[in-house]
Amino acid sequence: MSIENISSNKSFGGWNKQYTHRSAVLNCEMRFAIYLPPQASAGETVPALYWLSGLTCTDENFMQKSGAQRVAAELGIAIIAPDTSPRGDDVADDEAYDLGKGAGFYVNATQAPWNRHYQMYDYIVKELPELIEASFPVSGLRSISGHSMGGHGALTIALKNPLRYQSVSAFSPISNPLNCPWGQKAFTQYLGDAKAQWQQYDASELIRDARQFVPARIEQGNADQFLEEQLKPDTLTSAANVSGYPLELYSHDGYDHSYYFIASFIEDHLRFHAAHLKV
Amino acid sequence: MSIENISSNKSFGGWNKQYTHRSAVLNCEMRFAIYLPPQASAGETVPALYWLSGLTCTDENFMQKSGAQRVAAELGIAIIAPDTSPRGDDVADDEAYDLGKGAGFYVNATQAPWNRHYQMYDYIVKELPELIEASFPVSGLRSISGHSMGGHGALTIALKNPLRYQSVSAFSPISNPLNCPWGQKAFTQYLGDAKAQWQQYDASELIRDARQFVPARIEQGNADQFLEEQLKPDTLTSAANVSGYPLELYSHDGYDHSYYFIASFIEDHLRFHAAHLKV
Repeated sequence: MSIENISSNKSFGGWNKQYTHRSAVLNCEMRFAIYLPPQASAGETVPALYWLSGLTCTDENFMQKSGAQRVAAELGIAIIAPDTSPRGDDVADDEAYDLGKGAGFYVNATQAPWNRHYQMYDYIVKELPELIEASFPVSGLRSISGHSMGGHGALTIALKNPLRYQSVSAFSPISNPLNCPWGQKAFTQYLGDAKAQWQQYDASELIRDARQFVPARIEQGNADQFLEEQLKPDTLTSAANVSGYPLELYSHDGYDHSYYFIASFIEDHLRFHAAHLKV
Repeated sequence: MSIENISSNKSFGGWNKQYTHRSAVLNCEMRFAIYLPPQASAGETVPALYWLSGLTCTDENFMQKSGAQRVAAELGIAIIAPDTSPRGDDVADDEAYDLGKGAGFYVNATQAPWNRHYQMYDYIVKELPELIEASFPVSGLRSISGHSMGGHGALTIALKNPLRYQSVSAFSPISNPLNCPWGQKAFTQYLGDAKAQWQQYDASELIRDARQFVPARIEQGNADQFLEEQLKPDTLTSAANVSGYPLELYSHDGYDHSYYFIASFIEDHLRFHAAHLKV
C-alpha cells in the first residue's frame, strides 16, 4: 500500500493534505484528503472522523467549505474525506449528476457495467481505514459523518458495522433511498431490481432492525429543497422508534441543503463525535 | 439604483446573499455577495467590512471558503464581497489569469481597451458602498480587507481615503506592485507607461507619505509561494517606518497563499475590525 502526497496546506496549526493511491477494491487510482491536527505533528496518535460527501463532490468540497479544521485542531481529531466514486477514464459513467462518477452511493455494485469499479462500501469500510491507519498517526478509534448521499453512506455504514464506529452523524441524509428518486435510480443501476439487495443500504430499513446502537445525531434544515422528495427524515425517525434507537435529530428553521448549512453546525457535530472518541 | 437577489442561504443565523445590479461606473452588469448577520434581520443597522478578493476570484470564494460568517454573526458585522473585475461578453479580456477579467487590480484604467469598463477603484470606493447603504440595514461605518491583489486593493483604497474607513487589513497583499511582475504587467496595460500614474496605486508608495493613519493589520504566511517575487511585505514595512505608520504585520510559519491560511486567521481580522467599528 503506497500513497503519494499531492498537496499540503497548513491550516489552524495542522495540515490539510491530499494523497493519491491505487485502490485494489475499486480497481483504479483514487484521491483523498486528510486533515491532521497539530497534535498529530506533535507525536500524538489521534482518532479519526471519516466524512462522506454528497452528489457531485470530490475529496475537496468539505475541506474547503466546512470550516471543520478549526474545531478539529482544538479537539485533536483527524478528518478523512474520500472521493464520492471511483475515478478514471476507464470507469463507467453517466451524463446525469446523480449516477456514475461523483455518485457512488457507498454501495458495492453487483450489476454490469458498474460492478467492475463501484465498490465504494468496501472501500470506505475496509480499504481506506487500513491505509489511513498504516500511513498516518491515526488510531482505530473512528467516527463517521456525511452530507446528503454521504449522510446516507455514513448512517448505513455505521448501522451495518456498529463495532467499527464510536459515533455517527449526518447532515440532510438520504434517509430512505428505497422510496426516493435518487435512491431508486442509483440502486436499480448498481444493484438490479431485487429489493432485498436494496434494503441492506437503506438507513430506515437498517435502523428499524438495529440491536446495537451507535450514538447518532442528524442535522436537517427545514428549508432544504430536497426535504420531502429525496431525504425523508420522518421515515427514519419513525423506523428508529420501532427499534427504540436513540436518534437525535435537530431541525433548523430556514436552512437549506448547501454547505452554508453544514458550516453553521459542523462544530456541534465535531464536539458530539469528540465526546464518543474520548478526546 | 436597483438590485436583484439571485441567491439566499441561511448561515450562522444570518443570511448569505448574492445580488446583481447595473453598474454605471463599470458600464456592465455586476454581481456581489453580502453576509447579513442575525442582528440585521432583528432590525439593527450594522457596520460593514468590505472584502476584496484576489486574482481569478469572484464574489463567491471568500463567502464559501473563509468561514468568516461565524464570527461576523457573533460580532454583528455585515461582509460585502464584490467581484474582482467588470464582467460580460463585451468587456475586454486577456487569456492570462493575471490580466483582464478576474484581475481588475482595483484601479481606474486610463488606457484602451481597458478604460471602457475597468474602473474598479471608483466602483469599490463610491458606487458599491452607496448601493449597499441604500439597499440594506448597513451603516456608513466601513472597514476594508482583502487577499493578495485584494490586499493591495484594500491597503491602497484605505490609504487614499483615510476618512472613509475605520480600519484596514490584508492577507498576503501585493505590497509594491511597481516592483513585481503582477503589478508591472497590469499597470502597464491599465495605466500606460507613466510611472507617476502607478504610484497612486502602490501601497508602499502611499504609506511612505501617509499623514493620517487608518489602523492597519497584515497577515503573511512565510511559506507563501509568491512572497519574494510578488508580495514584498518588507518593502511595505520599511516604507511605513519612514512615515511612522503604525502597521501591525504578523508572519506565520508554514502558511502559504491559499484560503486555508485566510480561514486560519480571519477571526483575528474580524475582531481587529470590530474594535475599530465599535461593535
